[in-house]
Amino acid sequence: MNNLIQRYSEIRKILISYNYIMNLINWDSATQAPADCFELRSTRYEVLYQQYYNQLSSKEYYDLLVELNNHLDQLDNTLAHEVEVRKKELDKTLKVPASQLADYMTLLSKSENVWAKAKNENNFSLFQPVLTQIINYNFDYMKYQQTPTLQGYDILLKEYEPHFTSKEYDAFFGLLKKELPPLIKQITSIPCPFRTDFMSRPCSVEKQKEISLYFQKVLCFDLNKGLSMESEHPFSTSFGTSDSRYTNHFHVHNFTDSIFSCLHEIGHCLYELQNDPSLDNTFCSGGASMAMHESQSRFYENMIGRSEAFWNTHFGNIQAICPEVLGDVSAHEFYLAINQVKNSFIRTAADELTYPLHIMIRYDLEKAIFNKEIEIKDLPTAWNHSIKEYLGIDVKNDQEGVLQDVHWAGGSFGYFPTYALGSAYAAQIDYVMRKNLDVDYILSQPTVKEINAWLKQYIHQFGASDYPEIILEKALDEPFDPSYYVSYLKDKYTKIYSL
Amino acid sequence: MNNLIQRYSEIRKILISYNYIMNLINWDSATQAPADCFELRSTRYEVLYQQYYNQLSSKEYYDLLVELNNHLDQLDNTLAHEVEVRKKELDKTLKVPASQLADYMTLLSKSENVWAKAKNENNFSLFQPVLTQIINYNFDYMKYQQTPTLQGYDILLKEYEPHFTSKEYDAFFGLLKKELPPLIKQITSIPCPFRTDFMSRPCSVEKQKEISLYFQKVLCFDLNKGLSMESEHPFSTSFGTSDSRYTNHFHVHNFTDSIFSCLHEIGHCLYELQNDPSLDNTFCSGGASMAMHESQSRFYENMIGRSEAFWNTHFGNIQAICPEVLGDVSAHEFYLAINQVKNSFIRTAADELTYPLHIMIRYDLEKAIFNKEIEIKDLPTAWNHSIKEYLGIDVKNDQEGVLQDVHWAGGSFGYFPTYALGSAYAAQIDYVMRKNLDVDYILSQPTVKEINAWLKQYIHQFGASDYPEIILEKALDEPFDPSYYVSYLKDKYTKIYSL
Repeated sequence: MNNLIQRYSEIRKILISYNYIMNLINWDSATQAPADCFELRSTRYEVLYQQYYNQLSSKEYYDLLVELNNHLDQLDNTLAHEVEVRKKELDKTLKVPASQLADYMTLLSKSENVWAKAKNENNFSLFQPVLTQIINYNFDYMKYQQTPTLQGYDILLKEYEPHFTSKEYDAFFGLLKKELPPLIKQITSIPCPFRTDFMSRPCSVEKQKEISLYFQKVLCFDLNKGLSMESEHPFSTSFGTSDSRYTNHFHVHNFTDSIFSCLHEIGHCLYELQNDPSLDNTFCSGGASMAMHESQSRFYENMIGRSEAFWNTHFGNIQAICPEVLGDVSAHEFYLAINQVKNSFIRTAADELTYPLHIMIRYDLEKAIFNKEIEIKDLPTAWNHSIKEYLGIDVKNDQEGVLQDVHWAGGSFGYFPTYALGSAYAAQIDYVMRKNLDVDYILSQPTVKEINAWLKQYIHQFGASDYPEIILEKALDEPFDPSYYVSYLKDKYTKIYSL
Repeated sequence: MNNLIQRYSEIRKILISYNYIMNLINWDSATQAPADCFELRSTRYEVLYQQYYNQLSSKEYYDLLVELNNHLDQLDNTLAHEVEVRKKELDKTLKVPASQLADYMTLLSKSENVWAKAKNENNFSLFQPVLTQIINYNFDYMKYQQTPTLQGYDILLKEYEPHFTSKEYDAFFGLLKKELPPLIKQITSIPCPFRTDFMSRPCSVEKQKEISLYFQKVLCFDLNKGLSMESEHPFSTSFGTSDSRYTNHFHVHNFTDSIFSCLHEIGHCLYELQNDPSLDNTFCSGGASMAMHESQSRFYENMIGRSEAFWNTHFGNIQAICPEVLGDVSAHEFYLAINQVKNSFIRTAADELTYPLHIMIRYDLEKAIFNKEIEIKDLPTAWNHSIKEYLGIDVKNDQEGVLQDVHWAGGSFGYFPTYALGSAYAAQIDYVMRKNLDVDYILSQPTVKEINAWLKQYIHQFGASDYPEIILEKALDEPFDPSYYVSYLKDKYTKIYSL
């Protein structure tokens, strides 16, 4: 058994090294690589992906996984979980013909550029042919993976959150659909009762960077183990517990955007930085699932970053950095303004309350696509119809409609719902944390280190060493229950809007 | 034959992709990766190197090279040259036992850190054990590679400049040793006849960056195909004709250093950016040799960047960027000051005239090491003795003496001499270019694009598609002759010092 484990570890090291360099190429691409090197770089990426795939699909690796999987009882818990998950994943990968997978990777390496062009030119029909190819691949993928008990869109959903299929998501979104729209309607039908005039005041990029540095310290983001750069869309990436990175963007007339992006992305980074270091160089490092990862970013962005206790502590320091922007604003006014509820077009700019509706719209459309209830050419119309239905506003063009997100261009179907689910996890985590910790007292301190410590103890340290629902339920001391999310939102916004 | 070429190209693509990612990891390390990730990163680098080596040492690749090498007449010139060189290189690589090479790579992945610590703590004895291991490997390497006609240090020298062994270098340095010291002595024995007071005036990092951006434009460095970042020591790296990068560093009290580093590193970048694009994804991309590469960086740094015609054009614009530094300085005063000759300790800070003596000292010491005429423990004393002999100054500590350069920690023996040789190539290139082009007129223009075009036509486009001496001789229209270098230096400094 020791020899098997040893050999398995060696191959795992190779696979992880390939993951590392593919992520590093992506990081480089998004943050700095010059525009003209796109083609050369994607050629090299494809070659390396092929090397990775050859190793992944080698008979030796498969046989090792089978052998270890047959003796899970002889492995420690973490390795047993890893082997079980890897075996299932590999079985899925091997069901796709190698040449079809290679063609798909080539398609994806170019599709983001096509999408970007279509978005820039505000023309869905430019993107439609590529999107059709991507969706067709996903139909094939579903066929390869289907079993008597698992079919259709559920296959894609489970890729991102293994214990959630459309049955669970329907229940989840059903609750939100029932509870949130009446509150949103109540709020948005009256004029905003607090001032928001300062939110679009110009704030220089330099000052915004200074503010981000300030919050890096507040969140205890250790620059010996991480770094930040700029990119068009903020994102984070991690290479183990000693190297976690995020990006931000800075818009002069929307300075709070960079603040919340910073808090959000650092939330992702902290999750991985606080993994137990023994998980480095294993497949159990990182986050337990996409929704779990998003729960951490949303927790830091919203439960902490949009709370009044947090701004009571930090507003004065931010005001001191940019008095020309915030000189005539109070902490309370700022707190209200950053929580303004608005029916808006862009998901990433949406407030906490309308955000899950944006996700729900995407979920419904994806379900319709894979249930063959809609044609791809009709996606823009269907999108605009849903936005009108749930948010009451008219989409004027595809740039602010169906073309706004990159996800589909990357082949990510079934991913969006985890964003809303993560927010719901975060609300329940917030509830439990407040039972155990005096969160408002901690937020009165210069840093949130005790909150980091709590999350490390109950969530972060475990990385992906178990199934997300198990890690989550242990942390929550009860199963996931979306009613906490609804209560959290209702309580918060009823107070903010004095309803 | 076509099938062979096809298969060879496929394997070459894989090897080049590995080179690409190893370079990208190095770029990331030097420019941004957080300090604590060093160990994790070097583990992954080692794994990827091993994958590269496995491909390189595969029987299939070797057999292909042998087969193609047997039919060079059926290949186009570029491919024939590539195959011939690759076959020789692979034969050399395969003479080293795989496990010994792997151990050496592991040693090198750690040795730079040991060197940096020793340098910081100013303690050669900390570095000595690692240096001894590195040198011992190189002794073994020499044994593996020796033939009746090639032995000892010559083997290492030829790794960097294939047509130069100690015989040629002895003649080259012999000439410099005879011609330069009397001139240097004459210059340094009198008080400096021009003002240099402004050279250490503080200049903010922001302004220095603005100056670098200015010179990027002057040199036509295209930001769609390149980028710059900061690192402790300036360097450049290229990934083909669409992605060439360099770094710079900014010292407030030595603002001209970042100017000349910028010109130097962009010189390296332009060489690779101006390769014929058909060389991308072949082993004939890049520079023809280390000395050829250095000739281009030195050309832009010295022949252009330290010429009076250049500063007559650009000084006013730089003065306008930092009037607080250069307000009371004339273009002529600036030109003189940036060419001040000083006996100094640090190679990278040395002026154009004393620079080759710094190199000669390293060459002599390396020769002594590999001729077993010196023990490693005695290197600091020998170093200090040579500096005293040639430059007449007393080295006070190893930081400014034997520990100043990273090269030996990276196993680079035989590399230093190419720096002086490159300068000599550059002087002869300058001579030829001036026969063909009105260089001073071009330097009166806002950009040097006609100089770039000349270098592209006669040198850059060929990349590494032929042996350096052949490309060079064609460009020069006669063989390399170091007396051009001596004349260039004598003429320039005789005028500057009105001798």
